[in-house]
Amino acid sequence: MGFKVEKIFIAILGVGTVGKAVIDILQNNQDIITARAGVSIIPKIAIARNIDNKNISIPLSTDINDALNDKDIEIIVELIGGIELPYSIALQALERNKAFVTANKAMLAYHRHDLEVRNNGIPIGFEASVCGAIPIIRVLRDGLCANHIISIRGIMNGTSNYILTQMSQKNESFESALKQAQELGYAEANPALDINGSDSAHKLLILASLAYGINAKIDDIIVEGIEGLTLEDINFARGSEYEIKLLGVAKKTNNQLELRAHLAMIPKDCMLAKVSGVMNAISVVGDNVGEMLYYGAGAGGSQTASSVISDIIEIARNKVLLHNIKNTVPSESTPHSMPMLGYANDTYSIGHDIELMPRDKISCCYYIRLKVRDKLGVLSNISHVFALHQISIKSLIQKNPKNLDSQYAYLLLSTHICTEAQIQKALSELSILQDIIESPFMIRIDNL
Amino acid sequence: MGFKVEKIFIAILGVGTVGKAVIDILQNNQDIITARAGVSIIPKIAIARNIDNKNISIPLSTDINDALNDKDIEIIVELIGGIELPYSIALQALERNKAFVTANKAMLAYHRHDLEVRNNGIPIGFEASVCGAIPIIRVLRDGLCANHIISIRGIMNGTSNYILTQMSQKNESFESALKQAQELGYAEANPALDINGSDSAHKLLILASLAYGINAKIDDIIVEGIEGLTLEDINFARGSEYEIKLLGVAKKTNNQLELRAHLAMIPKDCMLAKVSGVMNAISVVGDNVGEMLYYGAGAGGSQTASSVISDIIEIARNKVLLHNIKNTVPSESTPHSMPMLGYANDTYSIGHDIELMPRDKISCCYYIRLKVRDKLGVLSNISHVFALHQISIKSLIQKNPKNLDSQYAYLLLSTHICTEAQIQKALSELSILQDIIESPFMIRIDNL
Repeated sequence: MGFKVEKIFIAILGVGTVGKAVIDILQNNQDIITARAGVSIIPKIAIARNIDNKNISIPLSTDINDALNDKDIEIIVELIGGIELPYSIALQALERNKAFVTANKAMLAYHRHDLEVRNNGIPIGFEASVCGAIPIIRVLRDGLCANHIISIRGIMNGTSNYILTQMSQKNESFESALKQAQELGYAEANPALDINGSDSAHKLLILASLAYGINAKIDDIIVEGIEGLTLEDINFARGSEYEIKLLGVAKKTNNQLELRAHLAMIPKDCMLAKVSGVMNAISVVGDNVGEMLYYGAGAGGSQTASSVISDIIEIARNKVLLHNIKNTVPSESTPHSMPMLGYANDTYSIGHDIELMPRDKISCCYYIRLKVRDKLGVLSNISHVFALHQISIKSLIQKNPKNLDSQYAYLLLSTHICTEAQIQKALSELSILQDIIESPFMIRIDNL
Repeated sequence: MGFKVEKIFIAILGVGTVGKAVIDILQNNQDIITARAGVSIIPKIAIARNIDNKNISIPLSTDINDALNDKDIEIIVELIGGIELPYSIALQALERNKAFVTANKAMLAYHRHDLEVRNNGIPIGFEASVCGAIPIIRVLRDGLCANHIISIRGIMNGTSNYILTQMSQKNESFESALKQAQELGYAEANPALDINGSDSAHKLLILASLAYGINAKIDDIIVEGIEGLTLEDINFARGSEYEIKLLGVAKKTNNQLELRAHLAMIPKDCMLAKVSGVMNAISVVGDNVGEMLYYGAGAGGSQTASSVISDIIEIARNKVLLHNIKNTVPSESTPHSMPMLGYANDTYSIGHDIELMPRDKISCCYYIRLKVRDKLGVLSNISHVFALHQISIKSLIQKNPKNLDSQYAYLLLSTHICTEAQIQKALSELSILQDIIESPFMIRIDNL
């Protein structure tokens, strides 16, 4: 068979938690990784913004070109974060015929289809970009590829799931649970992306591309976070046999696709409701397989690094195969790869006219919390608003908790099914009623 | 790029529930399958033992050679069941340079390593052989390939999980639950393989090859079924915060691997315990990822067919890629594939000295049900046997249920950790004690 491929050199861009874990695992699990890949995978250089105190075992540089211009290096592993810089690095890597592996969901949320168009058959791996260790990219690209995907529902952010679990299981307030998450290192000092739904939305957009071939933009989908949730809401959910989770949801009806990331009340005995703490899980319903669930660590250095390395091994395996077939040295191999987003061409969604469902047309049941003045006539005014928008109330409870000034009360209500257009108009009118003294708080009810 | 590959012809051997579903899905989901594969996948012929009343849309023959000798056919899909006949078909397919896809766990339980040695780079797909729709083969081969696998625990048989769920949730007797499973089509008229643990053991052996490279034989591992389980046991488990599940377990300690399929009591709040009805789930613990769980339908025509087709698509994608690179017609392509069992060579287990832990050395805690004469001195005799084998009793309950003759009682006890050698000797001595009037019934307690 001619030459044997013995080594593949890679570069690690970014030496934070994940980058360090990649270097460590390549070292510590070298035995099994070599056996899996059929070749040694050698991190030749790491790139960091500064090279002080990094305490890593491989050469370090601050200059990305030291990786990009090294002809020995066949795979660029991007773990620096950000959006435009890593995208430009990806393009430079591809130009130089180097494979590209990334854990960067934010960059892919914006540029995944650009990369697909421009990769020219050079492999791009991004298993680590969605839900850490869970191999959901491969599940959608390979495992379920004989299915039309009916829906995807995922707990895709461990930080917010930790907070929700603390609130639900320990009756902690939102603020107290967030503080704990920060102390435990689950939440950043600035946890905005985690708790405002953006992180979940980024991941959802990537999965929607794999499942439906659709190039959806974050500005076109519903993105809401967990801020504003209170124990009143948690208690209402418990009383109604629901759990409250921050979900990313993709749901196809005929050729219209709903994409949305927001809090949802889901039946407490469904598998997703049982996912607690920092864990992630994604439920996928395919037309042939029914419901499946994939559960695991959604973040963490070694967990994310495990997925990064799985991509590196896949690329290495293909290089070895190709080499065996062509009997040439790998750097001369014609680049080749699985289709990045799982389709042989990017026309599938167009061919099938799968389009984003307009926000206004999305419909479900809703839970609404109103803080009101506890006096006669208030309920009548509120009911009038719902009636005006033809929203039918399913249940209504008044709560007068001890910690609430006695002149106020909470009204907790749930609706029958209606559209976003209806509920948003109603909420907007409710918010200006004189006796409603806080913006209404709404959670969608997803009966699956 | 020269010729474009437009079609790949396949043959379907066996037109039972799964074979029919494969043909139907290739037809009904042709749009997405073609987009995923980059090529049309055409079932050119089906082979059945008899061709009456098959009501399928493609040519049918009773002669396997009509598939094996057809030069257009590039993939043989084996769905006939059995062990030696499908193995010989696999070898004939490989000899003729045809890829081989199978859902046949029993055949692979015996011949997977033979096929790996003899496939000579020709692709063999077997995703459908373990847990139907759950892509666990790819998870171990690809997704978690950067991990040393610490353990695998799976509910791998839907029939028995249905029976256990009915017993646990509805207080049905074993016999009544089995009858229901048969009426609902979940269990065969002869359900032996499902309920005696063999089916779970077959799947476990396949997973152990992927995770550890070990060529273990069914006769060398513990295989026990669910027969003999009673509601007494279910109630004991409930009182101790356990669920009872039929598990396939692989667990590595240093370089020794436990492989066993048997009933187990597991903590009722772990994810596996929440898997009910005919569903399957596999929990995998990797050294970098921690615990992950994969949940879905473990059987059923379209569910299993989904995995069969995922293998066909993977093979087709590789053929298209290879064709694009080599610019030759596919039948002239050099065969190539991912390593069948996930390792570049089959020496991994040897290189790492992973060996089967001798049965006698496996240790855990045990639950034991004894039906005894309810009289003085019995407990003393029983305690003596346990003491003799240095087994420490953790809990003991006497039960005198109404439906039991008043001269008898049940003793339900649990032990601290001890070895199989100890417990089996104790059980064997207990079974001949005069006042024990039924063979002792034992369930392992797996605290994960």
